[in-house]
Amino acid sequence: MKATIINIGDELLIGQVVNTNAANMSQQLIAAGIDVVGVYTIGDQADAIRSTLDNCLNMSEIVLITGGLGPTKDDITKKVLCDFFHSELYENEEALENVKKRLAAYGRELTPINRQQSWVPRCCTMINNILGTAPCMWFEVPGSTPAKVVVSLPGVPFEMVNLMQSEVVPRLQKHFHTDCIINKNLLVQGIGESFLSDLIEPWELALPDTIRLAYLPQPGLTKLRLTARGTDEAALRRQLDAALKTLYPIAGEYIVGEDLETLPELVAQRMCAAGLTLATAESCTGGAVASKLTALAGASDYFLGGVVSYSNAVKESALGVKHETLMAHGAVSEETAREMACGVREHLGADFGVATTGIAGPGGGTPEKPVGTVWIAVASAQRVVTKKLQCPGRRAQVIERTCSELYGLLISQVRG
Amino acid sequence: MKATIINIGDELLIGQVVNTNAANMSQQLIAAGIDVVGVYTIGDQADAIRSTLDNCLNMSEIVLITGGLGPTKDDITKKVLCDFFHSELYENEEALENVKKRLAAYGRELTPINRQQSWVPRCCTMINNILGTAPCMWFEVPGSTPAKVVVSLPGVPFEMVNLMQSEVVPRLQKHFHTDCIINKNLLVQGIGESFLSDLIEPWELALPDTIRLAYLPQPGLTKLRLTARGTDEAALRRQLDAALKTLYPIAGEYIVGEDLETLPELVAQRMCAAGLTLATAESCTGGAVASKLTALAGASDYFLGGVVSYSNAVKESALGVKHETLMAHGAVSEETAREMACGVREHLGADFGVATTGIAGPGGGTPEKPVGTVWIAVASAQRVVTKKLQCPGRRAQVIERTCSELYGLLISQVRG
Repeated sequence: MKATIINIGDELLIGQVVNTNAANMSQQLIAAGIDVVGVYTIGDQADAIRSTLDNCLNMSEIVLITGGLGPTKDDITKKVLCDFFHSELYENEEALENVKKRLAAYGRELTPINRQQSWVPRCCTMINNILGTAPCMWFEVPGSTPAKVVVSLPGVPFEMVNLMQSEVVPRLQKHFHTDCIINKNLLVQGIGESFLSDLIEPWELALPDTIRLAYLPQPGLTKLRLTARGTDEAALRRQLDAALKTLYPIAGEYIVGEDLETLPELVAQRMCAAGLTLATAESCTGGAVASKLTALAGASDYFLGGVVSYSNAVKESALGVKHETLMAHGAVSEETAREMACGVREHLGADFGVATTGIAGPGGGTPEKPVGTVWIAVASAQRVVTKKLQCPGRRAQVIERTCSELYGLLISQVRG
Repeated sequence: MKATIINIGDELLIGQVVNTNAANMSQQLIAAGIDVVGVYTIGDQADAIRSTLDNCLNMSEIVLITGGLGPTKDDITKKVLCDFFHSELYENEEALENVKKRLAAYGRELTPINRQQSWVPRCCTMINNILGTAPCMWFEVPGSTPAKVVVSLPGVPFEMVNLMQSEVVPRLQKHFHTDCIINKNLLVQGIGESFLSDLIEPWELALPDTIRLAYLPQPGLTKLRLTARGTDEAALRRQLDAALKTLYPIAGEYIVGEDLETLPELVAQRMCAAGLTLATAESCTGGAVASKLTALAGASDYFLGGVVSYSNAVKESALGVKHETLMAHGAVSEETAREMACGVREHLGADFGVATTGIAGPGGGTPEKPVGTVWIAVASAQRVVTKKLQCPGRRAQVIERTCSELYGLLISQVRG
């Protein structure tokens, strides 16, 4: 079973909005045993929508479309789909009730332009969007058994996510027979992608045809993904287990986590398993270390809090960094990182304190400490470990890399 | 001049990595007067790469490809391109030197697998990737004047960004004649998209053909984008100025910013213009309010720092929230939000203190305070304003929405 995704919106093409919908939809489809073979981002242009839809229907049994369903003139998806399926728009009562309810929740009245939100093509099945005013539309394309399916969803991420989970995916599973797909992720640290590839090549070549390997490098980390695909779930699980059993003797020393997507998940797992608490002190990362950890549900089980000490005064007052240290070594120094980590650990009463201080850029660099120079530190009751980074890239990359390195350093200390 | 983008990588299709490259590349192309007509995400499959490339060359003069250039077996882009252009691979000396240099920087030796990174098709122009080991490749397709161009770039974001800025875009501008495109963004707050659309419809209908309007809704905000396109830059600027002059009398009261992309940019602009400083106190947003502000260069001009008070103990010790307040009203309450905002303002010595406290979910909700219940506060020397939110959606949406609402509340106070 193959699916394609069409994300419609000039804001995506012009690059003003990052397309997070595609990743979310893919994850949900993959988990349901539906293979995503392409994601197409196009503008709010009738010709482009028609030709991409034609193309996608040639490539896949399922076409999911997002966007272009708003009440404004530049949103034309519904009209194009109505023409594509040779249908006509009518006012759907259930959709109208929903539009009224949504507007009432915001204390607003129904306008003619909002009322049009409840119009849908006669040939589609209207799926109510309880979180928004643009209804979801399910089209079946005659000509094959089971019929190919085109679903139009709103582009607002949380509306799309809710509709996919509660309505679209269950309906797709019911409508089609789907292959069983099992993904197994391994987080690998301390070895480069090409060295890892050399190391495990004989093992990879011996994998059964049902299992495919992919390398997903991240800053400071490589994720290996094993994908098993077939009809017999039990057999796939046995094959995956067998493959893992033979991998560990070869590369086990580098495997830091299983079935996790990211380092923050691994931090959470390690801290919770060890029953330890964490506090963060951030300068150049400006809250990113904490926000990535707290983006995960259950962070309060181990994360007590943190201090973003952007100014030197806050480093002194909130973290107890000594004025002399800042004067003698500067804010971006091993000594300051060390005192920040120890300070936040003590002030917040945590088992571990971690710290970042560096020059994220684009300004602030000097010949001795160019942009990308960062010190990180991890403090526990037993010891303080520090590490100097020289991060390549721009501000966002420096922040991203610093977070990854800090999580890695913390994990190594909780492990050790 | 039209461009298409092909992002290659199973990790994108499976949804494990959000495609941020597309947005970044689009922004750079648009700014150079090159129109992006489609973004295609496909897997590491030779057939898909070939057919998508064929399709893209039919639609556009420029095809930019990212990904699939790593040293591992699942990376096949280079081989497919070599076949597509009926060429053969050779070891490029400059690329080899660069690979050696990159490995040396990490203290690693050249392996046969890494050496292959320096092989490129004979028919392409090799563009050195000074931040990584995978070279960039520039192909010219015979048959039209000027020749259509296909460029293969590495998928690692900071390598791609650097190559686009320093090499690819300048070369494209030189190779092709490009249209002039001017974008003008307006941030609009306090009016829904459909009401705004009603309000400005007559104005929109009177816009000249050279100017196009798009609505880009974000949580708590609508961004209006005016795009002027043509050959005469001066004339386009005059038309844009004239369009704005007639818009302000109609909708000026809702326009909070010009030429800004996001609310954090507007916060920075307002705080700096007013010469004011800011401190943040975050519970449910866990550092996201601070990290979005500090993601922008120059944040230290107004942002002093913040406290992530995830646990109640930290709310008391680091922010001075009264124990009785937490006992009587709970952590998620107007009183706690107020004391957090005032506390961080005083403790960090800032002009403004802002605070968030709420239930981001998925756990922690009660009938009285369901998931999505959030209190935000903005404190200055003059007053404290608070607002209760009921955020729809899941954890990430609650955090996102809370940040937007808090920035909005802060902006309204700095404005007023």
